[in-house]
Amino acid sequence: MIQGIGASAGIAIGKAFVLPNWEWDLPETGIDAVDLANEFERLYEGIRTSKNEIEYIKNEFRDIVGEEESSIFDAHLAILDDPVFMNEIQGVIERQYKAAEVAVKEAIDHFVTMFDLLDDEYMKERAMDIKDVGNRLLKHLLGAPEITLPSDTQPYILVVKELSPSQLAHLNPSHVLGVVTMLGGKTSHSSIMARALGMPLVAGLESKLTTPIQTGDLIVMDGESGHLFVNPEKRIIEQFECARTEQKLKKEQLELLSTVESVTKDGTHMRLSANISSVKELDMAVKYGALGVGLFRTEFLYMDRSTFPSEEEQFAVYRQVVQKMDGRPTVIRTLDIGGDKQLEYFPLPQEDNPFLGYRAIRISLERQELFQTQLTAILRASAYGKVKIMYPMISSVEEVRQANLILRKAMADLDTRGIPYDADIPVGVMIEIPAAVVIADLLAEESDFFSIGTNDLVQYVLAVDRMNEQVAHLYHPYHPAVLRMLRTIAEAAGKANIPVSVCGEMAGDERSIPLWLELGINDLSMSIQSLLRVKHRVLNTTASAAREAARQCYKLATSTEIEKLLTDFNESSCLDKKSAG
Amino acid sequence: MIQGIGASAGIAIGKAFVLPNWEWDLPETGIDAVDLANEFERLYEGIRTSKNEIEYIKNEFRDIVGEEESSIFDAHLAILDDPVFMNEIQGVIERQYKAAEVAVKEAIDHFVTMFDLLDDEYMKERAMDIKDVGNRLLKHLLGAPEITLPSDTQPYILVVKELSPSQLAHLNPSHVLGVVTMLGGKTSHSSIMARALGMPLVAGLESKLTTPIQTGDLIVMDGESGHLFVNPEKRIIEQFECARTEQKLKKEQLELLSTVESVTKDGTHMRLSANISSVKELDMAVKYGALGVGLFRTEFLYMDRSTFPSEEEQFAVYRQVVQKMDGRPTVIRTLDIGGDKQLEYFPLPQEDNPFLGYRAIRISLERQELFQTQLTAILRASAYGKVKIMYPMISSVEEVRQANLILRKAMADLDTRGIPYDADIPVGVMIEIPAAVVIADLLAEESDFFSIGTNDLVQYVLAVDRMNEQVAHLYHPYHPAVLRMLRTIAEAAGKANIPVSVCGEMAGDERSIPLWLELGINDLSMSIQSLLRVKHRVLNTTASAAREAARQCYKLATSTEIEKLLTDFNESSCLDKKSAG
Repeated sequence: MIQGIGASAGIAIGKAFVLPNWEWDLPETGIDAVDLANEFERLYEGIRTSKNEIEYIKNEFRDIVGEEESSIFDAHLAILDDPVFMNEIQGVIERQYKAAEVAVKEAIDHFVTMFDLLDDEYMKERAMDIKDVGNRLLKHLLGAPEITLPSDTQPYILVVKELSPSQLAHLNPSHVLGVVTMLGGKTSHSSIMARALGMPLVAGLESKLTTPIQTGDLIVMDGESGHLFVNPEKRIIEQFECARTEQKLKKEQLELLSTVESVTKDGTHMRLSANISSVKELDMAVKYGALGVGLFRTEFLYMDRSTFPSEEEQFAVYRQVVQKMDGRPTVIRTLDIGGDKQLEYFPLPQEDNPFLGYRAIRISLERQELFQTQLTAILRASAYGKVKIMYPMISSVEEVRQANLILRKAMADLDTRGIPYDADIPVGVMIEIPAAVVIADLLAEESDFFSIGTNDLVQYVLAVDRMNEQVAHLYHPYHPAVLRMLRTIAEAAGKANIPVSVCGEMAGDERSIPLWLELGINDLSMSIQSLLRVKHRVLNTTASAAREAARQCYKLATSTEIEKLLTDFNESSCLDKKSAG
Repeated sequence: MIQGIGASAGIAIGKAFVLPNWEWDLPETGIDAVDLANEFERLYEGIRTSKNEIEYIKNEFRDIVGEEESSIFDAHLAILDDPVFMNEIQGVIERQYKAAEVAVKEAIDHFVTMFDLLDDEYMKERAMDIKDVGNRLLKHLLGAPEITLPSDTQPYILVVKELSPSQLAHLNPSHVLGVVTMLGGKTSHSSIMARALGMPLVAGLESKLTTPIQTGDLIVMDGESGHLFVNPEKRIIEQFECARTEQKLKKEQLELLSTVESVTKDGTHMRLSANISSVKELDMAVKYGALGVGLFRTEFLYMDRSTFPSEEEQFAVYRQVVQKMDGRPTVIRTLDIGGDKQLEYFPLPQEDNPFLGYRAIRISLERQELFQTQLTAILRASAYGKVKIMYPMISSVEEVRQANLILRKAMADLDTRGIPYDADIPVGVMIEIPAAVVIADLLAEESDFFSIGTNDLVQYVLAVDRMNEQVAHLYHPYHPAVLRMLRTIAEAAGKANIPVSVCGEMAGDERSIPLWLELGINDLSMSIQSLLRVKHRVLNTTASAAREAARQCYKLATSTEIEKLLTDFNESSCLDKKSAG
């Protein structure tokens, strides 16, 4: 067994297809001065074609994996517009009379070397982007064919040195069972995309292999654990085939639960809603039995554009959502950009610690015209169904009051225009900053509901950026401080008699069910992928025993003990433990 | 009155001296191929001289302003070692046969243009660094004299377009009363340095002046408010002269308090200790009457070196501190690098959010050999006086236990070697992460004392990086959530019967005195500059009235109200309100 990095979950078994490193044949002769104009024209034509191609890939890809993952290609488009990169290429053509291909190749090498020298993860990722875009441009200049993978053979496992996002976007899941890369890690663009695509990926094998994998080798890989076997004995193959079958069966079993009511064995109801990032996920949410949208992210409306979306554009989308949900409540979160989410037409300053910076409600309260436009559009949609408004990143009572002031302006404006809206629309806040927890009683006086954003909350409470591999092991949702804060929130909401739900990733982790039951929180919102898995666990849970387990958790002093207790409880209460493997 | 940016506090009144922009006379002729080697030798010689000069400035400057501010020059040294910058220069000499001066100038222009294009504050600051270093290198290549300022005239106010850190380091405070710059802001390197030097600075005047300032104009400037007057009427001059005199008088009065006991009017003692970043501040701490060192930062021991300091080297320093403090307690904080503090010989990965990343105890617990060396050195010093050990960035019980395990190893090692130490040395934790507050009761069982690091605590509780200008207005030490957390800490410490002190900047803000009195915290540690000011206010405070004011604060829902109440209380209890202006 070889231990690689498990970069995208899934078991794959098949023959290896090893893709050789691409080498370009560059023209050896230079150009004449009279050809300069012609050479520039070729360059510009190549750039135009490359841009069109990237736009196409991006759009196609977005439909499969959503906005956030496909935004990787925006970085690629930006490179082709980058004056520094372009000046470098033009300079080589103009001053050294070299062919456009050669100039592009030299510019790529120059920047890649420079960025690699800086020894900085961000710059390395940018170097990969430049290589990816540069190779595309080279391909067009040379008139070279797209790197094609066999499509007439049995489906295979692709083995490559490194995988660029462009390459990954081209993979056909009916031909490629999984990918094995020598370089790369869990957080590279390609790994993030592979997870979005559900394509199994084991990365970082370079120093692990004693002999290189050959085309035709039989590969068994587990993209979750990172385990890889080359030409293993029959026993191993059968074992993984069995596991793969079980995964498939389990998925089919779960789908039967869509219409079953989510209730514990002893009769406690648990409302399960979906977190949604784009309109096209709605059908799936309904199909999987979501009782509402607990978190409708509005960022996608603002992306891939050149200006802010108008009131009409936003209204059209919000109304569509509300109508599709057909009476089920939809919680619309106001714009949460900043942090790691940027808009091209609204450049935010570079920040040393963007997670502690200018984002979400902080931007909305400064750019009030934008905020009011969004609130107006949401209000208008509220005439068509059950809508709630939620403010992100609230850290003080003042912020809620300021936001509500703008909301009242939007209402007054609609009154003047004679446009209907739900005057009693519930307005709540996300509890995701430690300060909000500590003053939850004060915020409850200003809010109609709370929604707990566990991802950011855990991050801030522990001062751990979970995307940072160096400290990711310190990110503990089951830290005793987090548990106590959850209780503080639930108690404050209880006293003020307002509902509280959970919309962070903890909601999608079935081990946390006992905590919610004990705190009296019975409204969870999660990714569509988690809905049936969590419902399955709710159905197999006895609420009274779960509450007792949660009370035990509150007596423990460490995350390790708490997580173990909840994991053990989860496994013991799982009836179909054997078939779940 | 012209409103600039108040970048470094202090009132200055004097004639303007306007420094013209420096223009270089570059050689117009190229070089011959045979001169290439010679030209490279000139370049290397210029780099060597520049490096020596920067090292010299840095060391000189560090003695005045301390480690952190002088580290700006490390960035300058790094540029002269940067292969990308150097390749650029060498390339121009080698391929275009240009003189070294011209190559340097072109490289500066190239990088400055490139960085400016990126429209990114960080890159702009780097562009300024490159300009600064590049001009120094140019100066040496051209054999040009240092830009000298008049020293035989009356002291004056320096007016420049922009001020580089190098230029600032050269200013002689006996000739320069203050500085006025057209560009720059509050957070530029030069502004940070000016504050460290106590040099008044008003920045960002470019678009504010209707007519340019001329040498000889009479300038009145207030580096706190950013107010600037050019040739004002006599009334204004007199008013600012008066304010300046009052500032001076107040400083002298305060110095008389050094030996006075720090006690409120109704007899509550408040222990005031000093935060120290280097050995040479100790004399000043003792002179200003510090009753101990409440926070001894050990980072400086690790900086400006090529390897980690040995046990012996550290021991020598810690012993010196302990002996100088002569029986007064010294709290030594173990290494707190990471975040914005880096070591040249221990490169840390680039992080997206370093404040939520790999730093302090998180590094110590992974690099246990380094940590044990430091603990051993501290233990050895404990044989010579009263020493306490403090762990930074604690977020869990496990971390304290792991750290104590290594401490016990260090003790066992000293036992074996027969070296004496204080076996009962108190070991405490910094409470600066929200999780630590929430589980303060659990941490109290593992600790001998708490010290509250308010700077980081406020930052994490509110999710606001206070160095980020975009959100700095949201950084509120007097946020109700912070007040409640302070109470949680004090109560947990009280129940466990362990002492609690405060070592963040709130301790140096006299408006917070009522809070400490109410919480029963009577141990504050602060910058040396704050010691007498805070003592002066303690002496003028009635503890019973202060406690009542603090209790009122706990009833308020917003930072604005709390801060106003504490500010009002502070002003009303200030006996010499008039003389303090």
